Amino acid sequence: MLGEILKNTRAARPLVHCISNLVTANDCANLMLAAGASPIMAEAPEEVAEIAAMCAGEVLNLGTPNPAKLEAMALAGREANRRNRPVVFDPVGVGSSALRKHGAQRLMQAVHFAAIRGNSTEITSLLHGTQNHRGVDADEGEALSCADAVQLARQTGAVVIVTGSADLTTDGFTVYRVGNGHAMMRSVTGAGCMLSALTGVYLAANPDRPLQAALAAVCAMGLAGELAHARLSPQDGNATFRNYIIDAIYNMTPEQLEEGAKYEIQ
Amino acid sequence: MLGEILKNTRAARPLVHCISNLVTANDCANLMLAAGASPIMAEAPEEVAEIAAMCAGEVLNLGTPNPAKLEAMALAGREANRRNRPVVFDPVGVGSSALRKHGAQRLMQAVHFAAIRGNSTEITSLLHGTQNHRGVDADEGEALSCADAVQLARQTGAVVIVTGSADLTTDGFTVYRVGNGHAMMRSVTGAGCMLSALTGVYLAANPDRPLQAALAAVCAMGLAGELAHARLSPQDGNATFRNYIIDAIYNMTPEQLEEGAKYEIQ
Amino acid sequence: MLGEILKNTRAARPLVHCISNLVTANDCANLMLAAGASPIMAEAPEEVAEIAAMCAGEVLNLGTPNPAKLEAMALAGREANRRNRPVVFDPVGVGSSALRKHGAQRLMQAVHFAAIRGNSTEITSLLHGTQNHRGVDADEGEALSCADAVQLARQTGAVVIVTGSADLTTDGFTVYRVGNGHAMMRSVTGAGCMLSALTGVYLAANPDRPLQAALAAVCAMGLAGELAHARLSPQDGNATFRNYIIDAIYNMTPEQLEEGAKYEIQ
Repeated sequence: MLGEILKNTRAARPLVHCISNLVTANDCANLMLAAGASPIMAEAPEEVAEIAAMCAGEVLNLGTPNPAKLEAMALAGREANRRNRPVVFDPVGVGSSALRKHGAQRLMQAVHFAAIRGNSTEITSLLHGTQNHRGVDADEGEALSCADAVQLARQTGAVVIVTGSADLTTDGFTVYRVGNGHAMMRSVTGAGCMLSALTGVYLAANPDRPLQAALAAVCAMGLAGELAHARLSPQDGNATFRNYIIDAIYNMTPEQLEEGAKYEIQ
Repeated sequence: MLGEILKNTRAARPLVHCISNLVTANDCANLMLAAGASPIMAEAPEEVAEIAAMCAGEVLNLGTPNPAKLEAMALAGREANRRNRPVVFDPVGVGSSALRKHGAQRLMQAVHFAAIRGNSTEITSLLHGTQNHRGVDADEGEALSCADAVQLARQTGAVVIVTGSADLTTDGFTVYRVGNGHAMMRSVTGAGCMLSALTGVYLAANPDRPLQAALAAVCAMGLAGELAHARLSPQDGNATFRNYIIDAIYNMTPEQLEEGAKYEIQ
Repeated sequence: MLGEILKNTRAARPLVHCISNLVTANDCANLMLAAGASPIMAEAPEEVAEIAAMCAGEVLNLGTPNPAKLEAMALAGREANRRNRPVVFDPVGVGSSALRKHGAQRLMQAVHFAAIRGNSTEITSLLHGTQNHRGVDADEGEALSCADAVQLARQTGAVVIVTGSADLTTDGFTVYRVGNGHAMMRSVTGAGCMLSALTGVYLAANPDRPLQAALAAVCAMGLAGELAHARLSPQDGNATFRNYIIDAIYNMTPEQLEEGAKYEIQ
């Protein structure tokens, strides 16, 4: 099942628009290329609707936000909605500031998301409008917010991905618990952003199967982390690990994903 | 001939100003350092003329544009023109939006470019003012737009580089067809931006030989891709490949370029 | 002594806010993660005070400046001052434009810095308000501006780090001369930015020992450069070297730093 998602993606080579951030734009672009997509980054309100109009999918990332970028995200998201193209939202650090919180709330009203990916702190903040004090990382002690994910999925109609010590993917009815991944991924900036970008790529090429596409992205990214970690030599650290994660997505075959994916219905 | 371009560059260690983009600024800076230049990135209209005034060359990249950056590109380009310093233009995704198209048109009127580098879609869009729907990538099926490149070179007085399945470099009279490169370079974000940056570096150190400097950049970048690909192990992908490309430019000797460059007059 | 700085950092896992730049934001974030911190990048004036309020430290980097970012730096710095959290300033290319020079002067008036890190050209420009013409690199021939560093430290109350062929760290009274490092680090964009980010991380976790924390950062970064260089194979260049530097910070143990640090009181 998941292998097909990959196969379709490499066949379609979808053009995907990404409103990214200062920190992870390059890694996201290379990850999207590795997955077989053609990424285009653009964030000026003056052009994003045109860009969105020609793309098969959208990834909107809340990192390093500013008012113009928030406006651009709404314009791009609405244009994609109008054309029935999937939009993925990554609410980076949404509880860290009023700008992010209110920006996310306005986006949630203006745009229908096909998928939302965040860590547990972000998903909870997004659902309840709360602020938190841990920046862009999840509170490590926090229990995996399965109930929040389900509720957010039902409220928004989006597939919701919660990443953390274990990863959940849910459409509000079925909940997949994914066992792939490696703890060292927390030491790579943008691992979450890259998963969101990958989700956007898989959804763009498989728009009728958002839950499976999202699940494939979570499994593929986690598996890439495992494969990358297995290659590390003793002097390698998080920079080499980052490169190897992207490399693993580049080399991943449908068969490899089928065999390596670890998920179960919760 | 081409080896001398490299030798001059490492001797001059030119300071080169780059108005870059969100995605590839880091790779371009490291590539420019690898080539022996000292890069400086700056994009605020408030400061770019001063920055340009102290630099030996300019690279203006249209990626992730916004009105302020477009204004900065005009200011920097004009200052460089005033001082007879070469300006390289990379019309990233120029046909993808009105902002890029009109921005590029205004730049073409305001600034004399010593070199312009784009893929075939971009060069054609730039010449004819057309829009397209393939984002920042070239249409793969499109025939190499040799006639367009020659015409653009004659109209602008710039050396024009068209990259794709084969690469052309022309001053509007002589057309070099370059055989270096590797198909995997299409999987690296910013391979084109990096070539434009390298062109700016070589031109800054060899301002009286723009055609040779541009040809050297195209050959060096393609050769770097070949050398990088030859180093890859089975688990390596586009992220490692990207690093190896920059590494190859870092280690490239004049002799290596002389021997490895593959070009012919068309 | 220095090993304790590392140990404290990994134990505290401080949240550190960084106003970074277009070129080096990703490397700085990965370096900060490698050092055991949790980085958050944000640069909109609308949100930086809130972000700063929840962080244990601040890193303000003058690269790719614009008026909004300069305003954000003042807001974030003042908020951190109010909460007695250390603020590190990196005056990238401060002598290259009036925007940077005046922006830095206003910041120096508005914010108390716990540490300032620059190359000799930048430190001298910052102290005397002079402009220069070498962009973001130090004039290589310039004598190490020890007197300027001491004077700047006394005037500002900041620990001052001057990097170059040899590195100095001073609080205006004690001057440490650090012998770690490798000349190839000049070929990596953002080596200076990364050191400033590392200084911010160590200070955030060791706010009562700014001089030792800054010295630890200079030694650790230099040692990372040595370790990274020792791993290079003949075809590796500055891109692989960059990754290995971050990897070395990731793997660095307190014992390794204690043994490898080379410094003396001047």
